[in-house]
Amino acid sequence: MQQSFGWAIRPFVDKQQSLLTLPTNFSMYESTTQVRVRYAETDQMNVVYYGNYAQYFEVGRVESIRQLGYTYKDMEQQGVIMPVVEMQVKYLRPATYDDLITIKTQIRELPHDHQITFYQEVFNEAGKLLTSGKVVLYFLDAATRRKTTMPAAMHEKIEHYFSK
Amino acid sequence: MQQSFGWAIRPFVDKQQSLLTLPTNFSMYESTTQVRVRYAETDQMNVVYYGNYAQYFEVGRVESIRQLGYTYKDMEQQGVIMPVVEMQVKYLRPATYDDLITIKTQIRELPHDHQITFYQEVFNEAGKLLTSGKVVLYFLDAATRRKTTMPAAMHEKIEHYFSK
Amino acid sequence: MQQSFGWAIRPFVDKQQSLLTLPTNFSMYESTTQVRVRYAETDQMNVVYYGNYAQYFEVGRVESIRQLGYTYKDMEQQGVIMPVVEMQVKYLRPATYDDLITIKTQIRELPHDHQITFYQEVFNEAGKLLTSGKVVLYFLDAATRRKTTMPAAMHEKIEHYFSK
Amino acid sequence: MQQSFGWAIRPFVDKQQSLLTLPTNFSMYESTTQVRVRYAETDQMNVVYYGNYAQYFEVGRVESIRQLGYTYKDMEQQGVIMPVVEMQVKYLRPATYDDLITIKTQIRELPHDHQITFYQEVFNEAGKLLTSGKVVLYFLDAATRRKTTMPAAMHEKIEHYFSK
Repeated sequence: MQQSFGWAIRPFVDKQQSLLTLPTNFSMYESTTQVRVRYAETDQMNVVYYGNYAQYFEVGRVESIRQLGYTYKDMEQQGVIMPVVEMQVKYLRPATYDDLITIKTQIRELPHDHQITFYQEVFNEAGKLLTSGKVVLYFLDAATRRKTTMPAAMHEKIEHYFSK
Repeated sequence: MQQSFGWAIRPFVDKQQSLLTLPTNFSMYESTTQVRVRYAETDQMNVVYYGNYAQYFEVGRVESIRQLGYTYKDMEQQGVIMPVVEMQVKYLRPATYDDLITIKTQIRELPHDHQITFYQEVFNEAGKLLTSGKVVLYFLDAATRRKTTMPAAMHEKIEHYFSK
Repeated sequence: MQQSFGWAIRPFVDKQQSLLTLPTNFSMYESTTQVRVRYAETDQMNVVYYGNYAQYFEVGRVESIRQLGYTYKDMEQQGVIMPVVEMQVKYLRPATYDDLITIKTQIRELPHDHQITFYQEVFNEAGKLLTSGKVVLYFLDAATRRKTTMPAAMHEKIEHYFSK
Repeated sequence: MQQSFGWAIRPFVDKQQSLLTLPTNFSMYESTTQVRVRYAETDQMNVVYYGNYAQYFEVGRVESIRQLGYTYKDMEQQGVIMPVVEMQVKYLRPATYDDLITIKTQIRELPHDHQITFYQEVFNEAGKLLTSGKVVLYFLDAATRRKTTMPAAMHEKIEHYFSK
């Protein structure tokens, strides 16, 4: 009953590349984390509600920063917030209740201004790609809500992932 | 404290058109509905969490179908489901707690196959554009999960909005 | 398929009164508001996820205050916040997708200290009681997080509903 | 800024026991699991929205069953669903963004009919009790929605935790 949506993979794979297809010699920062799908996150179509991937992507980004040795929470406490200004999502196959999904998160370019882009993919336990996304965020001063740049404490942790 | 994010509107308006800018002589179906922002939908940035716009868009689509004289619930009961296969969102300005937001929903092209695209915009009470989005859904047979087309009962209600 | 949960009403009605059964000569403040069940709010049991009633109750409370001629948003802007400290919910029958539910909200006693209790009921379009709840909140000073009392501006609007 | 709500613990501790205070020689089944608070789960009060604890409790129950060597997913696939029919929650202290919370889940009595009660507590990293709850669920036949009893496969895993 919970069969894979055969319809879903074909159009994207045939007609266009996944958002996340990467050249192998890329210089970037990549991280993965896992989340168990909650009952609350399903809907009556017996799959994860499409809006809930934004939360999975959030968890992926937050854990990718934590794996650097810094945290988004630290960033906010130091006065920088990161609102999302753009999101693109492709839903290839559905995630279902109790799936242990893997969220892959990539920063492919070291930000030089107020903007940072995360590329994100969600995989199921069989290694199938379920969803791919691209999320653009701004670095903003929490007090003034004006654009700022990546905090030095984070820049220091991440810069060596990017080749000169 | 809840000031408008001055940062947000400029990049999109200056550099590129909103996803929803329309020629005025367009033949299409358009509908609007309103939603009050819930406390639950805010986050500690004092704005609506970015993932919650998927729900607002859902409400916009569902009410646009109801205004046709048909319902998405009817469609499901008649054996057709509409999973989302793609979403694009631009966040221009934040919605805040208790805002009475207006969701504008457009179908610009009468679907001829399994796919339908909704263009959606969220406005605040001052008429400012907060968010614009594009959501692509499939018509699927609920039992087989195979692609199908728009149910005749809906097609009949909507076709006359589109000029030949 | 979406049949009413015959199991659900009997135990509560037979064995104990609904939380909200009221004597008719009661002096209190009562208000109703309506909400349409969103697809996002359902789960794979084909009913509204049990945790989402907290949002419906929130909407009920917020609209009950608005109907007084005051708003919870005003209250927060004047420096008083109302965190929930206790919630009790009985789930008698499920709400389902696209139901236009009615939320009844009662304040049965004018608060004299930092605490206020709301009694809430959710009904479907057939007038059947789906859920009843009791929610206790505190009035807190937003800055100090210390207990305070109902703001005078709200007290003034509500006191005449309660007989001396 | 995110200071502990000093107001919250006192009334409950002074006036009444936590819902979960246990005699030490109790025969029961207990389990713990951990969850990281998501940004999406906070609200503009800078704490976890009160309705989201229902999800934490769900995760606690689901993981407590998994730790038995059975899963709730298995149960549903074998035709038994467990809707919630009652929930009681006391909010003593708030959880905040990025907290790694511990959810303790107890079954204090082996169910002999269609009903099961879970006692649940949420603790922060400092070991402080944030929230305590009691959730009552029914065992229902998924097809008929009629009351049934705990599946034998689960009963077998859990019965030895309860002394005769």
